[in-house]
Amino acid sequence: MSYVAPVKDLLFNIRHLAGLDELVQQVPAFADYGLDTAAAVLDECAKLTQDVIAPLNFEGDKNPSSFKDGAVTTTPGFKEAFRAYVEGGWQGLVHPVDFGGQGAPKTIAAACNEMLQAANMSFALCPLLTDGAVEALLTAGSDAQRATFIPRLLDGSWTGTMNLTEPQAGSDLALVRTRAEPLGDGRYKLFGTKIFITYGEHDMAENIVHLVLARVTGAPEGVKGISLFLVPKFLINADGSLGARNDVHCVSIEHKLGIKASPTAVLQFGDHGGAWGELIGEENRGLEYMFIMMNAARYGVGLQGIAIADRAYQKAVAYAKDRVQSRPVDGSATGPAPIVHHPDVRRMLMTMRALTEGCRAMASTAAAAFDAAHHHPDTAVRQQSQAFYEFMVPLVKGYSTEMSQEVASLGVQVHGGMGFIEETGAAQYYRDAKILTIYEGTTAIQANDLVGRKTARDGGSLARAIAGQIEVTEGQLAQRSSAAAKSMLKQLRASRDDFLAAVEFIASHAKPQPNAAYAGSVPYLMLAGNLVAGWQLARALIAAEDKLASDEAFMQAKIATARFYAEHILPRTAALRAAIVDGADSVTALPLDAF
Amino acid sequence: MSYVAPVKDLLFNIRHLAGLDELVQQVPAFADYGLDTAAAVLDECAKLTQDVIAPLNFEGDKNPSSFKDGAVTTTPGFKEAFRAYVEGGWQGLVHPVDFGGQGAPKTIAAACNEMLQAANMSFALCPLLTDGAVEALLTAGSDAQRATFIPRLLDGSWTGTMNLTEPQAGSDLALVRTRAEPLGDGRYKLFGTKIFITYGEHDMAENIVHLVLARVTGAPEGVKGISLFLVPKFLINADGSLGARNDVHCVSIEHKLGIKASPTAVLQFGDHGGAWGELIGEENRGLEYMFIMMNAARYGVGLQGIAIADRAYQKAVAYAKDRVQSRPVDGSATGPAPIVHHPDVRRMLMTMRALTEGCRAMASTAAAAFDAAHHHPDTAVRQQSQAFYEFMVPLVKGYSTEMSQEVASLGVQVHGGMGFIEETGAAQYYRDAKILTIYEGTTAIQANDLVGRKTARDGGSLARAIAGQIEVTEGQLAQRSSAAAKSMLKQLRASRDDFLAAVEFIASHAKPQPNAAYAGSVPYLMLAGNLVAGWQLARALIAAEDKLASDEAFMQAKIATARFYAEHILPRTAALRAAIVDGADSVTALPLDAF
Repeated sequence: MSYVAPVKDLLFNIRHLAGLDELVQQVPAFADYGLDTAAAVLDECAKLTQDVIAPLNFEGDKNPSSFKDGAVTTTPGFKEAFRAYVEGGWQGLVHPVDFGGQGAPKTIAAACNEMLQAANMSFALCPLLTDGAVEALLTAGSDAQRATFIPRLLDGSWTGTMNLTEPQAGSDLALVRTRAEPLGDGRYKLFGTKIFITYGEHDMAENIVHLVLARVTGAPEGVKGISLFLVPKFLINADGSLGARNDVHCVSIEHKLGIKASPTAVLQFGDHGGAWGELIGEENRGLEYMFIMMNAARYGVGLQGIAIADRAYQKAVAYAKDRVQSRPVDGSATGPAPIVHHPDVRRMLMTMRALTEGCRAMASTAAAAFDAAHHHPDTAVRQQSQAFYEFMVPLVKGYSTEMSQEVASLGVQVHGGMGFIEETGAAQYYRDAKILTIYEGTTAIQANDLVGRKTARDGGSLARAIAGQIEVTEGQLAQRSSAAAKSMLKQLRASRDDFLAAVEFIASHAKPQPNAAYAGSVPYLMLAGNLVAGWQLARALIAAEDKLASDEAFMQAKIATARFYAEHILPRTAALRAAIVDGADSVTALPLDAF
Repeated sequence: MSYVAPVKDLLFNIRHLAGLDELVQQVPAFADYGLDTAAAVLDECAKLTQDVIAPLNFEGDKNPSSFKDGAVTTTPGFKEAFRAYVEGGWQGLVHPVDFGGQGAPKTIAAACNEMLQAANMSFALCPLLTDGAVEALLTAGSDAQRATFIPRLLDGSWTGTMNLTEPQAGSDLALVRTRAEPLGDGRYKLFGTKIFITYGEHDMAENIVHLVLARVTGAPEGVKGISLFLVPKFLINADGSLGARNDVHCVSIEHKLGIKASPTAVLQFGDHGGAWGELIGEENRGLEYMFIMMNAARYGVGLQGIAIADRAYQKAVAYAKDRVQSRPVDGSATGPAPIVHHPDVRRMLMTMRALTEGCRAMASTAAAAFDAAHHHPDTAVRQQSQAFYEFMVPLVKGYSTEMSQEVASLGVQVHGGMGFIEETGAAQYYRDAKILTIYEGTTAIQANDLVGRKTARDGGSLARAIAGQIEVTEGQLAQRSSAAAKSMLKQLRASRDDFLAAVEFIASHAKPQPNAAYAGSVPYLMLAGNLVAGWQLARALIAAEDKLASDEAFMQAKIATARFYAEHILPRTAALRAAIVDGADSVTALPLDAF
């Protein structure tokens, strides 16, 4: 089997870190989603992803989506796998029951999403984008738009896309030029070019629902003049059947480093008279709606990082147990042994494992905060949870994806020369992972969000409150006598101290010396992500010690992994602190023409 | 121009760090190679690499070497470029005048080699392997072998290869199974399969000289029974002309993640009766000779890391100056600005630059030690220099290649979404760089060498002596008042302290607890490499301050880059120290079946 879904670890997190039982007791809407249901859902999802979707991953890399005469043909098998996915109801898992969804908590859905992404990231991008479109329609769509589009998106008849980027407008959406001409009857005609449109054209569903950022004629310049439009590939008749082909056409797909099976389209709107579009929500509020969608997508991309890291880890473990080479340095064998016996191979595998489990734990906790933010009966809890979740999004997105590249690179390294041969498959993860720190906002964009909106705006008070929660966990560790708990306590304290120093620097410099604060933005994100992931593994360590008897081998492994994280990953915060606090000037000291 | 050779920086290093003037005064053989000659040689090399070889790099990735019916066709243009290279005398630059070489010091030749590798790593692998073959023949070849082969290797009529790896024998050469049957008349017939043979077959020269590790019938098992053979593709007649085709055949080439233009061959020896081979040196001493060759190659691979890092840096700088996106956070422009004005882009470019310059400085110093070790009139200097050089080889190889992957990844990141599109070219460096931490001994193999032979064997005394030299540089920094010198001093001290703690741990654990010492082997290599590169930039900083007036813009840039290294890169040693000293147990704590 090329992928084994980490159901046990996901359930451990759902139970002990996300606290699903508590959530279910407090939120009536989730009454059906207790731990038993979670286990059943995850098991079903594991079957589908392992048996049907994962086997297509390598095939998609070898035989990617192709473009001819305006049409995209996806990798053989993708269409059937997509049917299996939507017919199982998975596209609707987290979405409202009213529109045909399952209404599951994100705490459970995120675990399923990780499996889907791990099984086949190129494939899973299609459902991910559809989730975003559904989210945007739920937020800002009219009743008619919701009723028309959401059920068909959830049953997989149609899929969704996000059309933001243009050649001159990447991270800077203020530069969007696609224009929408109002026809006076509530309809618009759109004209422009969008690039990097994931699944902007494909053959897995009968229609594609493009959500498009564009400017209404006469709208203000910059981000305040951007509106969100719904532009279907085929127009929808009054009875819901498909009508005429709309004037939006794929003119090419990109030749990419990775995620080759996922078609990345260049779309032309209005080359033949204008693409019919309907406004979503109000004019000039497009960016606001898009950010809702993007926040969901950013969390999803963070899961992709965790997913691909796990896949890379599993492959590396299998190779390391199989490949025989050299005698162990400790003399434990007289001849060559499987390379997993060599300390540095072990170090690489533990690094991969600890980073993956740390980020998974962080994502699970963040999902629980999302659920509480949206559904908890107590307003104060909702608000606190929302603030916590919003702080977590750039960490889940930024840190998990950066770490995924480290993990995928180590995965190749464990394979030695075989890792460099494409047929081995390890290199695909290294190539695929590279997109994750770029799309849905680069790591720097995540870091800007963390510095500006999430830290500096409130003078660092939320960040300090989170440090306070970490201190509570330290208090719990301090009451324990195990070597693992002691080790974790020592390093968690040190890293929290590094974090607080960084927060003070960022909060105090963001306004008077923005260059100094933003020079440390990515190091600050990496510091915060490292700390929060380590904190969640500290909580996991405590739970594992408490529940040791319930599943000793698993709990011991959890403890050993958390300890490794404490001793090998958390110490990295010291260098990040130094870079932020002492290194701001040297970032911008070199004059431009000296580069 | 796609590549601009960093001639100024290379000459700065040659002058101020490698101390060429001093070397030339002390070594009569190098009397012709003063600074003026060095400048002239580097300028010539810059022209060839920039104008002729660099433009073929992207082409080689798009249109790589191909295999058909036993023959390999290289990328169009490679053959002509190779002619230009050998006709310029570059293949013989560092080799003895007696055989048609130029007898230049490695201090100069290494600088030229960096340019060649930067221009086109896939192309440059062919000369790199030929250098290795020449080295082996100089070391262990008979007079007749030297006279027959070296001049033809230097004039580019023939090229060389290294045949080590077999499917079951990668890092572990003890497992080599290729056998050599003695015919009783001094000749041998070889039988076996070799894989991963760089330029094992190609069309750029009329003959290929394979140096092959094999076991003579009846030889001892393990590494003590391995001999080195010379197996030409075409046999050589008594008059030096080419004779019959030998029984060594390319049966396929690999489909690789990167360096696609460099053909990586599977070679079959003896499928049609046996491949004629002659012994090099004595039977059963093959590994010893191969290590001489490999040490030269390891240094060369380190240069490849520096080279590809520089190329990635140059491309990222060009993009960052050109791509307009978003308003600067400091309000220095009212509209969107080139992204080089954003602090995090600056941080990425400075990281790339500092890592590249640091490793280049380290490599230059190491090259000077090599020259002194081989040619200095004073025996004590020769011995000290040799010991220093041998300590440097795993750092130049291991640290420079690991850093090249960080740099190439940042290079893609600076390009945002465009970086992920293959036509942009940034992704090629990311793919190409991945081989560097693997071939000629993985980073772990380098780290084993550093821990075992270079540190533990003498109880850490050489390592401590190097720390002592660093302390001398600190003393020089302490007499300076600039902010850059103060910053460097503070961090160099801290990192040296981290290094000494690691040395103590490694030296005291290598024998009683080898797993503990080797669990920290790669972190120790990364710590030592980081420190030594930083130390060389500290020396560069001092020289730049002293020579400020001679070229102010250049010297200020050098100072700024050194300071950035001190504040952003050197602090990483703290986490490495912690991992080595406090984290050994957690590397091997997880039981095998828990992975």
